[in-house]
Amino acid sequence: MPRDLFIYNTLSREKEKFQPLVPGHAGLYVCGPTVYGDPHLGHARPGVVYDVFVRLLKDLGYKVRYVRNITDVGHLENDSDSGEDKINRKARLEELEPMEIVQYYTIRYHQAMAALNTLPPSIEPRASGHITEQIAMIQQILDTGMAYEINGSVYFDVERYNREHRYGILSRRVLEDLQTNTRTLDGQDDKRSPFDFALWKKAAPEHIMHWPSPWSEGFPGWHLECSVMSSKYLGQVFDIHGGGMDLLFPHHECELAQNTVTRGEHSVRYWMHNNLITINGQKMGKSLGNFITLEELFSGKHPLLTQAFHPMTVRFFILQAHYRGPLDFSNDALVAAGKGLKRLLQARLVLKKIPVQEGLAASDTLAEMEEKIYRALCDDLNTPVALAALFDMAGWIQATSDARKPIAPQDRDVAERIYDRVAEGILGLKEETAQDHLPLVEGLIEMILELRTRARSRKEWSESDRIRDRLSDLGVKIKDSKDGTDWEF
Amino acid sequence: MPRDLFIYNTLSREKEKFQPLVPGHAGLYVCGPTVYGDPHLGHARPGVVYDVFVRLLKDLGYKVRYVRNITDVGHLENDSDSGEDKINRKARLEELEPMEIVQYYTIRYHQAMAALNTLPPSIEPRASGHITEQIAMIQQILDTGMAYEINGSVYFDVERYNREHRYGILSRRVLEDLQTNTRTLDGQDDKRSPFDFALWKKAAPEHIMHWPSPWSEGFPGWHLECSVMSSKYLGQVFDIHGGGMDLLFPHHECELAQNTVTRGEHSVRYWMHNNLITINGQKMGKSLGNFITLEELFSGKHPLLTQAFHPMTVRFFILQAHYRGPLDFSNDALVAAGKGLKRLLQARLVLKKIPVQEGLAASDTLAEMEEKIYRALCDDLNTPVALAALFDMAGWIQATSDARKPIAPQDRDVAERIYDRVAEGILGLKEETAQDHLPLVEGLIEMILELRTRARSRKEWSESDRIRDRLSDLGVKIKDSKDGTDWEF
Repeated sequence: MPRDLFIYNTLSREKEKFQPLVPGHAGLYVCGPTVYGDPHLGHARPGVVYDVFVRLLKDLGYKVRYVRNITDVGHLENDSDSGEDKINRKARLEELEPMEIVQYYTIRYHQAMAALNTLPPSIEPRASGHITEQIAMIQQILDTGMAYEINGSVYFDVERYNREHRYGILSRRVLEDLQTNTRTLDGQDDKRSPFDFALWKKAAPEHIMHWPSPWSEGFPGWHLECSVMSSKYLGQVFDIHGGGMDLLFPHHECELAQNTVTRGEHSVRYWMHNNLITINGQKMGKSLGNFITLEELFSGKHPLLTQAFHPMTVRFFILQAHYRGPLDFSNDALVAAGKGLKRLLQARLVLKKIPVQEGLAASDTLAEMEEKIYRALCDDLNTPVALAALFDMAGWIQATSDARKPIAPQDRDVAERIYDRVAEGILGLKEETAQDHLPLVEGLIEMILELRTRARSRKEWSESDRIRDRLSDLGVKIKDSKDGTDWEF
Repeated sequence: MPRDLFIYNTLSREKEKFQPLVPGHAGLYVCGPTVYGDPHLGHARPGVVYDVFVRLLKDLGYKVRYVRNITDVGHLENDSDSGEDKINRKARLEELEPMEIVQYYTIRYHQAMAALNTLPPSIEPRASGHITEQIAMIQQILDTGMAYEINGSVYFDVERYNREHRYGILSRRVLEDLQTNTRTLDGQDDKRSPFDFALWKKAAPEHIMHWPSPWSEGFPGWHLECSVMSSKYLGQVFDIHGGGMDLLFPHHECELAQNTVTRGEHSVRYWMHNNLITINGQKMGKSLGNFITLEELFSGKHPLLTQAFHPMTVRFFILQAHYRGPLDFSNDALVAAGKGLKRLLQARLVLKKIPVQEGLAASDTLAEMEEKIYRALCDDLNTPVALAALFDMAGWIQATSDARKPIAPQDRDVAERIYDRVAEGILGLKEETAQDHLPLVEGLIEMILELRTRARSRKEWSESDRIRDRLSDLGVKIKDSKDGTDWEF
């Protein structure tokens, strides 16, 4: 039996004990990126948070199916149903096939997620790959009377739905209040009510991405794909649905309504939402000049940054905050995070040098820290508390080393296990290795060759030969000539 | 105007001058992998060959759209229409969702292709992502009378097609001969004739991957996806279709028949086929024990291999043969290829050391070599001839260096350009860098610290400090203590 895990369920606004639908298995659906632009800070947080959550579930013994979609069609401008498809617009600007843009940015997204050491999801379905299934679900919703067709488009009837169910149950919004505070439509749309949302949109003739359907040549509404793909790969009812707070309304509210009509109430058992990132206290936005892509972050090429930040620093920075809490990004905060991560990982090297003495009694300290870490992680993924305990352990290691005391084999084993299973395994933190050590290798070899030349000038031939042999052992072959010394691997 | 490029067209069995449909643009469709197993040697050849072809087109100035599909459904066992879907079978064996297997092996394929330094295609469409379009094409074929529906499945009527067109035009097979040499059906299938092929198959109840269609809940036939996706992303008529010789029949023959019925004759202007790889003279096959995955090749973990082979060695090895010629793989051949590649790339380092003398007249030799290389590459991608010219250049560089003669600036520029644009740009050959130099770095630093300790034991304090400062310049900080010297980045 896995250890108890508690998850804050947005639906109930309470921490609840996770009880999987199928014992030993966990199904998770997370809203993935819309691939019409470079991955940015806003993608990093859910990427890392749900990665740690999946790693925790696996560590606890669950067999996890982690589904994260790629929105490659149907995401309408400004989350309203007017305006053209964002991907489509970019396609025409660049005179490219939309799917070329999708391919380009999907690869960029995957590269950034890999740099952040997130594991790929088990399944990564695409909206454009599930048109058949989306059409089938629209028909199903039409059959219940909860949607209506008008001029080739199909809309979900929110008022009708709200009479039988509760629209707003997830985001705690009340439809009547929303309606009071919203101006009426300006007639550009066919919808009966401003809160109705598109299930299928008839494509204008110039619209590139479209498919045949019983209603028109068109494209599916954005909210639909997640209802369709989550049920297809996880089942009519499944365990956990995650995503960013920005998706709570209208996206997840609409998804829940679609689910309820087609799959009944409680189709998703736990809804998780990560909070958003602010930058120097402000919301991130292109117009504010504080929009930072992950490439800019990793290379340091942005006016708000004084240096390049290793992806591991970014990962660590994200985990320093609880996923439901705010996270304010700043250059200084990242610099501090980089130092903290370094300190944490260096204690592991210190640990390796502390002598182990057989027969010494194990202290309770480390076992208590391990328990504290798991308790924190299982308490709604409380990574900051887990990290604090990891730093306590790092401090204990440093103090033990400074005191030049040996440790018991059990203590060493527990500390190693915490580094292996928690720091690296669950939190996914590892050494910030430079991508390419080649320039350093070249510099070091040149240095050694100079030292060897110096030895030869002193006629220390055996020292010179010894250096040559040692280099050879390391796979570096050197060749002396009148012009100096060359080397090669 | 780009330089003339000649391509051997399998359809005409002749080298033809490439005349693009749209001036300055080139559209290329290549059959990609079926993702139900690890990428192996058989994937490496088309991966590298069409990558070099695309790089050449771009170098010549074409804007290229390179489409390579992912077959994630519908590839039937033994290229016959009986038997269940291969991906589906594996899914049930491992008790996984088929799309989990697709995701796993797609990632493995991408990793192997990246290791081989192949560029990703512009679009990578998936069969499962184009069910709607496949159903539409089946309906179109049915409407022409060239297909028939029976018990929920739809088959292409090859005999009927052959009366109006010519089935076998691409592979130079004659239907009547094929029929004479084939035993009749054993009744397990609904097809009227053994050469008819499935456009849509009704799914057995236990079949996991299936979609609704006008004929049945089922799945598309394998040949269909390429007709559908090539026309969707490249147009009703497009420039070039590539693939392995093993796909010529029946796959491309059936594709051509589908195209002809729906898009008219000559829908593909140039058909290119790469020849296959043999291993020690034998066809590769799991039953023969000579099936080598790319991971086994890159790690050296296979009974037929004496060492690990760097992906660059594999790439170079593939380019040593003309793509339409046989390529026999053996451990020794790869060892030799590794040496050749090293020699070629090391001449570039030699080049950098040759003094350049302003005012010196340029020799014609290098310009002739450059011309010879491009002529070879534009002569149906004759990479072995291009490589021979590259080796001539490497020899010229070495001889010039040995003779201690300076070279003209133009000669240096031409040689550099050949390395940049041809060796690296078109052929995609680069230094075989080890994935991780960290162990070497550690070994070198330890060596330097020992040399420093030795200097200190001789009380050469300034030498000791100089070593410390040099290391610091390279980003390596050292700390002396009574227990010795520690270092960190």
